[in-house]
Amino acid sequence: MSVAILMGSKSDLDIVRNAFDVLDEFGVKFTARIMSAHRTPHEAAGFASEAEAKGCKVIICAAGMAAHLGGVVAAHTTLPVIGIPMASEPFKAVDSLLATVQMPPGIPVAAVTCGKAGAKNAALYAVSILATADEELAAKLKEFRKKQREQVLAADEELQNELKERKNVKN
Amino acid sequence: MSVAILMGSKSDLDIVRNAFDVLDEFGVKFTARIMSAHRTPHEAAGFASEAEAKGCKVIICAAGMAAHLGGVVAAHTTLPVIGIPMASEPFKAVDSLLATVQMPPGIPVAAVTCGKAGAKNAALYAVSILATADEELAAKLKEFRKKQREQVLAADEELQNELKERKNVKN
Amino acid sequence: MSVAILMGSKSDLDIVRNAFDVLDEFGVKFTARIMSAHRTPHEAAGFASEAEAKGCKVIICAAGMAAHLGGVVAAHTTLPVIGIPMASEPFKAVDSLLATVQMPPGIPVAAVTCGKAGAKNAALYAVSILATADEELAAKLKEFRKKQREQVLAADEELQNELKERKNVKN
Amino acid sequence: MSVAILMGSKSDLDIVRNAFDVLDEFGVKFTARIMSAHRTPHEAAGFASEAEAKGCKVIICAAGMAAHLGGVVAAHTTLPVIGIPMASEPFKAVDSLLATVQMPPGIPVAAVTCGKAGAKNAALYAVSILATADEELAAKLKEFRKKQREQVLAADEELQNELKERKNVKN
Amino acid sequence: MSVAILMGSKSDLDIVRNAFDVLDEFGVKFTARIMSAHRTPHEAAGFASEAEAKGCKVIICAAGMAAHLGGVVAAHTTLPVIGIPMASEPFKAVDSLLATVQMPPGIPVAAVTCGKAGAKNAALYAVSILATADEELAAKLKEFRKKQREQVLAADEELQNELKERKNVKN
Amino acid sequence: MSVAILMGSKSDLDIVRNAFDVLDEFGVKFTARIMSAHRTPHEAAGFASEAEAKGCKVIICAAGMAAHLGGVVAAHTTLPVIGIPMASEPFKAVDSLLATVQMPPGIPVAAVTCGKAGAKNAALYAVSILATADEELAAKLKEFRKKQREQVLAADEELQNELKERKNVKN
Amino acid sequence: MSVAILMGSKSDLDIVRNAFDVLDEFGVKFTARIMSAHRTPHEAAGFASEAEAKGCKVIICAAGMAAHLGGVVAAHTTLPVIGIPMASEPFKAVDSLLATVQMPPGIPVAAVTCGKAGAKNAALYAVSILATADEELAAKLKEFRKKQREQVLAADEELQNELKERKNVKN
Amino acid sequence: MSVAILMGSKSDLDIVRNAFDVLDEFGVKFTARIMSAHRTPHEAAGFASEAEAKGCKVIICAAGMAAHLGGVVAAHTTLPVIGIPMASEPFKAVDSLLATVQMPPGIPVAAVTCGKAGAKNAALYAVSILATADEELAAKLKEFRKKQREQVLAADEELQNELKERKNVKN
Repeated sequence: MSVAILMGSKSDLDIVRNAFDVLDEFGVKFTARIMSAHRTPHEAAGFASEAEAKGCKVIICAAGMAAHLGGVVAAHTTLPVIGIPMASEPFKAVDSLLATVQMPPGIPVAAVTCGKAGAKNAALYAVSILATADEELAAKLKEFRKKQREQVLAADEELQNELKERKNVKN
Repeated sequence: MSVAILMGSKSDLDIVRNAFDVLDEFGVKFTARIMSAHRTPHEAAGFASEAEAKGCKVIICAAGMAAHLGGVVAAHTTLPVIGIPMASEPFKAVDSLLATVQMPPGIPVAAVTCGKAGAKNAALYAVSILATADEELAAKLKEFRKKQREQVLAADEELQNELKERKNVKN
Repeated sequence: MSVAILMGSKSDLDIVRNAFDVLDEFGVKFTARIMSAHRTPHEAAGFASEAEAKGCKVIICAAGMAAHLGGVVAAHTTLPVIGIPMASEPFKAVDSLLATVQMPPGIPVAAVTCGKAGAKNAALYAVSILATADEELAAKLKEFRKKQREQVLAADEELQNELKERKNVKN
Repeated sequence: MSVAILMGSKSDLDIVRNAFDVLDEFGVKFTARIMSAHRTPHEAAGFASEAEAKGCKVIICAAGMAAHLGGVVAAHTTLPVIGIPMASEPFKAVDSLLATVQMPPGIPVAAVTCGKAGAKNAALYAVSILATADEELAAKLKEFRKKQREQVLAADEELQNELKERKNVKN
Repeated sequence: MSVAILMGSKSDLDIVRNAFDVLDEFGVKFTARIMSAHRTPHEAAGFASEAEAKGCKVIICAAGMAAHLGGVVAAHTTLPVIGIPMASEPFKAVDSLLATVQMPPGIPVAAVTCGKAGAKNAALYAVSILATADEELAAKLKEFRKKQREQVLAADEELQNELKERKNVKN
Repeated sequence: MSVAILMGSKSDLDIVRNAFDVLDEFGVKFTARIMSAHRTPHEAAGFASEAEAKGCKVIICAAGMAAHLGGVVAAHTTLPVIGIPMASEPFKAVDSLLATVQMPPGIPVAAVTCGKAGAKNAALYAVSILATADEELAAKLKEFRKKQREQVLAADEELQNELKERKNVKN
Repeated sequence: MSVAILMGSKSDLDIVRNAFDVLDEFGVKFTARIMSAHRTPHEAAGFASEAEAKGCKVIICAAGMAAHLGGVVAAHTTLPVIGIPMASEPFKAVDSLLATVQMPPGIPVAAVTCGKAGAKNAALYAVSILATADEELAAKLKEFRKKQREQVLAADEELQNELKERKNVKN
Repeated sequence: MSVAILMGSKSDLDIVRNAFDVLDEFGVKFTARIMSAHRTPHEAAGFASEAEAKGCKVIICAAGMAAHLGGVVAAHTTLPVIGIPMASEPFKAVDSLLATVQMPPGIPVAAVTCGKAGAKNAALYAVSILATADEELAAKLKEFRKKQREQVLAADEELQNELKERKNVKN
């Protein structure tokens, strides 16, 4: 595996699957584990400690509320750790974002967008890290960006068609 | 020791000393350690795992920013853990309070007042826990409350004296 | 009773029942009362004043909005008070969390997780306090943690089975 | 006395003095007391219960942090209670404002501006309440407003003089 | 009329009706008007200017978002103005609460609870103001509080019945 | 075209249509484009650079989350840029409002109301800018305000009819 | 005058002077007035009502706290109104920003950056509005931007010189 | 160069120097540039577009307030972009954190700790990314962590010495 995706609870899975799909799209090997910073701390620490030796290059941690998972993992590895702050009631993602990003100097965790968009972005960020040493992957990323651009252009074209009927619309 | 006070960084010490003073005032045996959830995770986990066997009854954890210390300690012990959310720039104690209190169901950490008042209150809360099984301590707590009450009454009396000179003041 | 659970309003009951269930699971004797810091202040103060003499060791207070119940109770007892900040519109639990946790130095109230997770955690925290002087309860807590750990491991195993079908997943 | 001003702590006094000055300016009889919702709950409840019988018409409560004083007082009187949310570190006045204003339906406390401006405004609001049944006071309030208006006009005039020297300024 | 209730928009009416009901319950004469600080500023200013002369003693202003209505009304009258901060998307009532309460020194507006509870509390607060010069109303308020207390006691009794079936419940 | 309306994503369209309707109502020529600060940065920069030469006078940018669109457009034009902060989960519009309004000194973007009300207000603000050099449009704006005023007066009249049946309502 | 700058209080003047300087730099005629939405409401409404007839094209309103000035002015004119949310204790500019920007649909106020940067940006935004019908001003704006760009380039050059001495710096 | 550090303004330099020092400590080649998303957008876009071809592997962007720099850079490169949310008045780093982290799905920017700690952590995170393909650097990172651990242990030892004099301290 090149990427490990950890999540603090089974309830995170539906959103985290968005990260699986991105990694699949790029053909990146990954593993995914449910591990809790608080309920299975030994497993989480153990996994983090051994990840590099098993070939892992990047660890993604999805967690909500107090969201300690990213920090606990980062404490046991020097691999780059990407945190996905999950949203939950009542504080939405204010708690998880701050608990992910506000790591003390010396042990960074990098937070991406909160929630579902974050699952996708965490995977893309992991790909971008791997791509720094993998030209093929870097090329795929550029292709992905191009497709994204085309989707926006297509949406814009669709809008132009819709607007043609409005008499005040002029380009 | 009956109480262990952990802090995530040497820079927390000045505020945490307020907890030392309260425990001293009540004659409660304590230990205090600088241990970081992220920089010395093994020490923190080890300390938490062994605390109960060493006679510790309550663990106080002071941490700022992402403030994972309380959660990491709670993951390795069933002793009651009291978190002091420390304030720091730029989010004051919003980050540390939420990271302390928003533990997932199953592993509670109890947060008290943020910052300096919290150091005092964490120690008092630890005393109140010990006092549930220690009548002498319970009596001391009642005495402490009485003194506190008297300080407020004295401050009020002082105010009454000051106000006597104002012509519109009537009781 | 060993634990008293107070709630400020009948509308809190559905969430607070989660605390009842935890105490039942541990076989801890408890009482539960609807008492309002503002609508029945004499009853609340009276209950708090007499709780210790009736054998109560810990008081849990669930309240939303301005959430004064924990503070009012703490003002009349030296027993440890655990506050559950209840969420409500429009401020979710920002109001109740701050009103619970930001007690002045000298009279602590300990806040746990907001809302439903908090009801469970408040009960568990009460159990952990009782367990400091009750070895049997301490053993039950350790058993509870073990079961929790096993649930996470089982969820992880389930995930591994699901992932087997994905071609990019490697351990 | 017509107005009672309670404050939770001696440290609130410097700011609360601004309320004294306003009441003096209007010749309104008042009393001021240091009373804590948590440290002297009996005194606070007792004072609130007896205030109406002593001729008090309005009670002002200044408190910071969890700021329960207004609510505790309101629970023991049907007189209008005005809360001054005091600012303090680390949450400024977010905690005290919400704890003051977010009273449950049935027992209102009215919050005015936070901090020093609030001390002045609380006194003015008390005057406006008294003035609903006191024509002389109502007249004084109108006079006060007129003076305030004149101060703004004077400040504007001063600015116009300053601006005369700038070549781009035109009326 | 003794009380005037202004609201900034027709959409506020459903919530404001809770204030109507309270005033009806107390037999307090009132008027209610839809007036906007921004869309009908002359009407709002005019109403405020003339309210006192028409016998009005208290003005309640319900407004959401930037919530200037209370302030605009207060600028044109010396009667006590009570603001109900209405909740709306996306900021819930953070915007309306701050816009209501943070009036500059010299022109207070008193904010009560946000939203529906606030409509009820604004009316009760108006009653408490009128009651400072109306003994009959003061007696009704005390009766209202008594009924509220009884409702809480009844809810508590209902809970005690429910709890009888739980084996761990002890009083 | 006199006004250009850009939006960062197709998903913004439903809300942005409210701006189309306002411009139609005023007979203002406009164009609307889906362009992303991040996915089609060249198109966005290019459009902004050329807008003035094409006769555009005002650019409206609707964007959510990190909401860089207004800033990116403002960096490439000296035309007035109006930002509509779109609301989305989990931070509602806190993120988009701050990302829109907190531009560094030198390159302003003007934010209007968040969300749907903002779409309408952005269009009205664009009209008010155009109206500074177009007397006909200025007259239409005054007419629009008059109609708005009449709608509030009509709503108030409807309320007066409803209230006639309540016995305590007096004008 | 082309631009009017209103401020709610004399204490805003030091920051607002930054707007004066920008308008001077562009040779734009302006007037500046101290007028309060609450203390001099008639003057503020009167000024707003008559501004257009006096040749004013844009009105800038600086106000802090509940910050109603922009809204009150916008209620009495159809000219574009730019709000500068001023920062003050204890809520910094959260209160003034929301009170400025969250205007109801129909009456927009456009907020720029909070505080000092906002004073500069409000003036620049006013210039950009005037420039939509003034080619000379539009040219000056482009020149201003060019100078700004050169300042950044110069700062970068200075940094490059400083960095030359560091051995790890490579371009 | 392996790492590029961009900052939006010269005023960010003092804090960003902390990143320079970390990269120096690890012997990582870097370049640092002052480039503004808004004042020098062409330079920023151009730099980002060409960075990969010049051998750059990671781009660090420090920006405050609306903090668009990271997003603008990410729009023009597929290299991993690390954002340092800089704190400034009046919103501290709430604005810059959200503007950095809340990127739309498809174009991630990874935020680290806000402010000075973030400058250090951004550099360390960049090192951890480079280390995924550089064993020597990976070894240096482990050494760095070890030293960090030793600093905490040393601070703890120092505390133990200090505590020896307190009579209630027991291990």
